[in-house]
Parts: sequence; C-alpha cells; structure tokens
Amino acid sequence: MPRPTRTTPKGAEARARVITEATRVFSRDGYRAGSLSRIAEAAGLTQQGLLHYFPNKAALLLAVVAERERSTAEHLERTSGSRSVLDRFVEAVEHNIEEPYLVELMTVLSAESTDPDHPTHAWFLQRYDDLVARLAAGVLEEQRSGRWAGGAEPEQAARTLVGLADGLRLQRLLGHPELDHAALLRTHLQAMRIGGTTP
Amino acid sequence: MPRPTRTTPKGAEARARVITEATRVFSRDGYRAGSLSRIAEAAGLTQQGLLHYFPNKAALLLAVVAERERSTAEHLERTSGSRSVLDRFVEAVEHNIEEPYLVELMTVLSAESTDPDHPTHAWFLQRYDDLVARLAAGVLEEQRSGRWAGGAEPEQAARTLVGLADGLRLQRLLGHPELDHAALLRTHLQAMRIGGTTP
Repeated sequence: MPRPTRTTPKGAEARARVITEATRVFSRDGYRAGSLSRIAEAAGLTQQGLLHYFPNKAALLLAVVAERERSTAEHLERTSGSRSVLDRFVEAVEHNIEEPYLVELMTVLSAESTDPDHPTHAWFLQRYDDLVARLAAGVLEEQRSGRWAGGAEPEQAARTLVGLADGLRLQRLLGHPELDHAALLRTHLQAMRIGGTTP
Repeated sequence: MPRPTRTTPKGAEARARVITEATRVFSRDGYRAGSLSRIAEAAGLTQQGLLHYFPNKAALLLAVVAERERSTAEHLERTSGSRSVLDRFVEAVEHNIEEPYLVELMTVLSAESTDPDHPTHAWFLQRYDDLVARLAAGVLEEQRSGRWAGGAEPEQAARTLVGLADGLRLQRLLGHPELDHAALLRTHLQAMRIGGTTP
C-alpha cells in the first residue's frame, strides 16, 4: 500500500488535524516551548508520522500561520462588500476573536517573532508591513474623499490602528475576556472620521 | 568561611549580575525557553551558585520584573514634578525605550503571561489593572478640569493609551527600530485634549 501523501483525502485530513493541534499547543506554550511530540499525540500520530507531513517544527509553524491568514482572508472576501479597507480591518479583528486559539497564538507568536532567529520573524515583518501599507492607503483615500477628519500622516494613522488592535488584544488576554477590543478599535476609527465623536 | 548571603556586598553584586543576564536571556528566548544554565554561565556562576540566590527559575523571573518596575518607578519619582499622570505615563514609555532589553523582555513576557500557568501571569494581571486604574483616574481628573476634550469612558480611554503603547512597541520590534512609539503615544494624548489636533 502506498504511503499517504498530502493530496489523498486521508492525508489532507491528517494535515488539518496536525494544524489544529499545533495551533492549540503553540498558542498556549509558544513556539519555542511547544512540544512536537505533544502535537503528534493529540493528532493521533507518531512523531515520525507527523514529520511525514511537516519536515520540521518550523515548517509546521509556517503552515499554522499561513492557514490562519487564509481563513481570515477568506472570511473578508466573503463579507467585504463595498466597505472601506479600514472597516474591513475592524471586521477581521472582530472575526478573529471568535476563532479558538487564534488570538492567543498571534499574541504569543508575534512577540516571540521579534527575535531575528525565530522561524516566523520574516513572516511577521512582511505581514505587518503589508497590513500597514494597505491601511495607510485606506487612510489616504478617506482623507482625499473628505471622510477622514485630520491631516494625519497616513502611515502613522495606520500604525496607530494596528497598534491599538494588538495592544487591546493583549489586555483582553490578561484577565479581561469581556474586553471587546474590536469595539474599542471601531470607536477610535469613528473618532478619526468627520462627524465622529472623540472617544 | 560562612556562605555569602544576599546582604553582603559580594552577594548583592552577584544577584545584580544574575538579574542583568536573566533579563538578556529571557528577553531573547522568552521565559519558557530561556536557559537557567546559560544565565548562570553569563553571570560567572555555576547553576548551583545561581540557585543559592534564586531558589528556582520562576523566582528569578519575578526578581527580574520587580527590578524593572523599581527602576521605572525610580525614574518617574526623580522626574515627575507636577505633570499629570498621563504625561508621566508617556515619559515612562520614553524612558523604557532606552533600557537595554527591557522593551523586548516586557513584550515577550506579557504575551507569554496570558497563560494562567505562567509564573508572571498574576503579576501582569495586577500590573495592568493598576496601570489602567491610575490612568483612568488621570483621564477623569482632566475631564473635570476641562483639559480632556471628549466624554470618553475613563477606563476605555486608559485602556486605549496602554494598548497603543504596547501595540506600537511590538511594531518597533518587528523591523522598525526607527519607530518612536512614545512620540506617537504623545500625539494621541494631545489629540484627546482641548486644543489638540486630531492625529
């Protein structure tokens, strides 16, 4: 019998199971302390079996973050309509709150990834630069159409939006599960717009 | 000859050396993956020698964060004058940028500490709740004196300030060392005040 490959249904299912369990373990323990054998066990595989799908721990981590990005992008694609990129950013933050382990994972992983030797260091740098560029373009567009109230430097306004989302997410995880960081982010965005009230 | 205790000059010096090296290692590798034997070696001690000063890794971590808080508080005490608590918060963020490893340490540690089993989980919860309470009192005071422009809920305004500081700090560490997160925080604070311009 041939070994299952990533293209068979069974292989695809096992890969998906490994990614789910890896998300859980990395979000709780971080990448460095996250145990590959614990992930394999939770996914019903031997460690050797897991390494058939992902050659090493770093490759597994990259698959986890790529899957998270794909899921967020897919959700945005489905729901975007004609709303501005800034509103869609707030919606993505809202959506991500509901994904189990995602908020914890991205919090721990983005902090760990500040180390240049971390396997997702380059990935996070690129992700943040892309996000800031997209949001800065959105701010500039709203300034040109007269929707944005102030003369903010677009990149700084974009960094402020991203920073708020990340910083409030951290506070939510530090003992305040009731904290609706997406709603606070929306309040900030509305305050920046013409006719909005200062929060 | 008696064993040195933490009250002898030699003991105090060794303790300080261990705390410096632990700050360096934990800020790069995180707490979980940070190696006690590497810290001991860098401080010129055996692991057994290190454990004479700190009974375990968690106790060492708590000493590290307590030392960081003490240093920040001391700086604020020296420089506070009559400025409001909100301005002093921005000054503390400014001051901390200059402390080697502190920005990295607090970023990685606060994210790791979202796990309830982490040794500094309770410490970070308390630290954030205290900080938010102090800043919320500052916002309320500025609202009463007519300095604050909007009718924000003080706790939400305080969480926004703290969130911005943390979120922008993360962006600084993700490939943008030129990013002056304290200056952006100050811009946000000024925009909230009467006569300030929207950023």
